[in-house]
Amino acid sequence: MNKLSIIKIGGNIIDDTSKLEKFLLDFSQLKSSKILVHGGGKVATQISASLGIEAKIVDGRRITDSETLKVVTMVYAGLINKNMVAKLQSFSCNAIGLTGADANTIPATKRPAVTTDYGFVGDIDTSLLHIESLKLFLDNNMTPVFAPITHDGKGQLLNTNADTIASALAVSLAKHFETRLLYCFEKKGVLKDINDENSVINEISLNEYAALKENGTISQGMIPKIDNAFDAINKGVKSVFICHADELLNIINAGEKKGTKLFKEN
Amino acid sequence: MNKLSIIKIGGNIIDDTSKLEKFLLDFSQLKSSKILVHGGGKVATQISASLGIEAKIVDGRRITDSETLKVVTMVYAGLINKNMVAKLQSFSCNAIGLTGADANTIPATKRPAVTTDYGFVGDIDTSLLHIESLKLFLDNNMTPVFAPITHDGKGQLLNTNADTIASALAVSLAKHFETRLLYCFEKKGVLKDINDENSVINEISLNEYAALKENGTISQGMIPKIDNAFDAINKGVKSVFICHADELLNIINAGEKKGTKLFKEN
Repeated sequence: MNKLSIIKIGGNIIDDTSKLEKFLLDFSQLKSSKILVHGGGKVATQISASLGIEAKIVDGRRITDSETLKVVTMVYAGLINKNMVAKLQSFSCNAIGLTGADANTIPATKRPAVTTDYGFVGDIDTSLLHIESLKLFLDNNMTPVFAPITHDGKGQLLNTNADTIASALAVSLAKHFETRLLYCFEKKGVLKDINDENSVINEISLNEYAALKENGTISQGMIPKIDNAFDAINKGVKSVFICHADELLNIINAGEKKGTKLFKEN
Repeated sequence: MNKLSIIKIGGNIIDDTSKLEKFLLDFSQLKSSKILVHGGGKVATQISASLGIEAKIVDGRRITDSETLKVVTMVYAGLINKNMVAKLQSFSCNAIGLTGADANTIPATKRPAVTTDYGFVGDIDTSLLHIESLKLFLDNNMTPVFAPITHDGKGQLLNTNADTIASALAVSLAKHFETRLLYCFEKKGVLKDINDENSVINEISLNEYAALKENGTISQGMIPKIDNAFDAINKGVKSVFICHADELLNIINAGEKKGTKLFKEN
């Protein structure tokens, strides 16, 4: 099987023009087939504020009302996505910007309002993705760049977590590619000591993970992210990396042990 | 050769939710392969105003400065394009939203500032379009939906006239498809008497056109549009229709003589 790298890039890098440019240059030089999934950054918040749209937060969770959905559609799928595509094209990477609505790649359902109504937020059933088009793009040397927007198939766009999109794509494409999923952010990886940036745990196997959780080596904040990563691995993804955006080429092209690699024992 | 319909839809219909929905439903039912190119509508102007960005107009022409480019990228490529794609998907049309930057389909050059600096406006050289990806999408039953944005290949997005994009796509794809180009707007077609909506000229051949221009039957305002249409026809496009958006199915699926058909004698 051909190798495929699915890379999620977060808001902090998107907000910094020079860091973003460096990251996109690195990304364009990855040797394997690749998909980029980007989050939002602060621009959506700034534009919402300029437009007089107040952020609605209930129980610490952001609510996507119809006005907020308009802003995230504009900023994520328009401003951020298309500027990234243009930049990648300038680096000779044949990028194509997508939402889950495009070619119906990622159908979703509006999250039911049980205790909280999160508004126009989409949840994904990984088994329902339409990967034929993505496979066609990848087989023809195109590089999909996903904005964190999906749709419900009835004409409604939905705001969707970028980590979730990256994971769903990785799981769905694992049937056709040897798939690696990389969460790039501004820390060097999973740390033994959260106060020591250099205490990165280089590898965590599924068997080791339980023990590390139990003895408190892995901090509470990281657990949901790692649980989701192992969930993807159990569904066929070869490995998941949690790493600094600067280490992308070192990990993928050079095969260096950087960041934290999560994997399952054979 | 397979038939391909390239349809340009203008701002007035985009601004009217119910008209737009009817148009998209009709569009989704077209029997041939198809591409949609949309313009902007009033939303960009409204959002610019809300953000405190003043429209810059020099010699009656709108200038795309960097702030305006951000707004049109957000509104055209994000809000309008992705909502159209989601709506078309709900009508079982496998739409994929694109700008000219995506898959490098439409490279452009920033218009040189000769007498006026129009800012970030892109001019297209029809011979430079990359239609391989478009052909791949069409051959795989996807329907491209273009926002009027291109790029310069150096990372810069450019605001580009939607009529020009539609025409460039039609000319470029005429090698591979029997291509019809339809400009849909809110008039019934080219009128003999601009005060009489029912005086539509149903057909104008290239030979007849010169005479109609000379004897003043065709009004000044229509001449540039028709000149561009015949230019596309001279470059291989089979026919160009100038018609009301409501007549789309009548013209393409039913083959009725509605709107104005421009063509070249064999």
